[in-house]
Amino acid sequence: MHINTKNLKAIQDLYPDELAHCYGCGKSNPDGFHLKTYLIGNETVAYFTPESKYIAIPGSVYGGLLASLLDCHGTGSAAAFVCKNEHISLADAKTIPVRCVTASLKIDFKKPTPLGVELELKGKLRSIEGRKIWVDMTLAADGVICVTGEILAIRLKD
Amino acid sequence: MHINTKNLKAIQDLYPDELAHCYGCGKSNPDGFHLKTYLIGNETVAYFTPESKYIAIPGSVYGGLLASLLDCHGTGSAAAFVCKNEHISLADAKTIPVRCVTASLKIDFKKPTPLGVELELKGKLRSIEGRKIWVDMTLAADGVICVTGEILAIRLKD
Repeated sequence: MHINTKNLKAIQDLYPDELAHCYGCGKSNPDGFHLKTYLIGNETVAYFTPESKYIAIPGSVYGGLLASLLDCHGTGSAAAFVCKNEHISLADAKTIPVRCVTASLKIDFKKPTPLGVELELKGKLRSIEGRKIWVDMTLAADGVICVTGEILAIRLKD
Repeated sequence: MHINTKNLKAIQDLYPDELAHCYGCGKSNPDGFHLKTYLIGNETVAYFTPESKYIAIPGSVYGGLLASLLDCHGTGSAAAFVCKNEHISLADAKTIPVRCVTASLKIDFKKPTPLGVELELKGKLRSIEGRKIWVDMTLAADGVICVTGEILAIRLKD
């Protein structure tokens, strides 16, 4: 079930222009994936349907793409959770003063991820300590979790 | 320094045709990265120069691409080390009876990876236990290690 994100702002669309070039999620990268992460309550979500060329072995999505999605959803989720923690309203913001990068990413491929269906990524905050943010993630296809991920993201200094 | 790989066969070019579609390294994927992993002694190497569109924040390579390279170099290295372990000569082979997939991938981004230079990936075998293969990896730019990775790869059943 696709959660309705129509009236929400994606966290990546609130990154300052000079930090919005990421191939995975930057609004200013004409070639990229443009992943959009939304904060809903205490959770983040993102949706993505891979093109058929992103194949691993026949029928399955290529792990590098899955890692890419989790990386960008992870840094986006980290920024969203920092905003929530600091009472920065995403609904009111044009840009946010928070941008995170990946220090460490761990990905467990639990089962093959089928090609040809929309993937749902979710993120939950584990903890924030200063500029370090840990987020736990899942990636599901047809309601079945195929991949789990954990990220340690670092908030860039202003 | 780029190690001379001219007279070597890439492990990915020895995958059976029906398992050679991977976006990251499959010879049969017309759109992919075509990463090539070579076994040299007890080590594997691969080289890749990212196009400028694979940007993270300005000047740096996008983490998702780095994860993708480590994923394919990891499974390729795992297959190469299994072949070495089982005395399967890559020089003599047209295809190999070994294909590995990723169970788990851990990536540590030690410092930003500069865009515009050739990246050198290396892999070393940690251990083989049955169908499980652990490989440690580094990714360097201009001789400086920017990213480290470890993979648990699983050998597919015949």
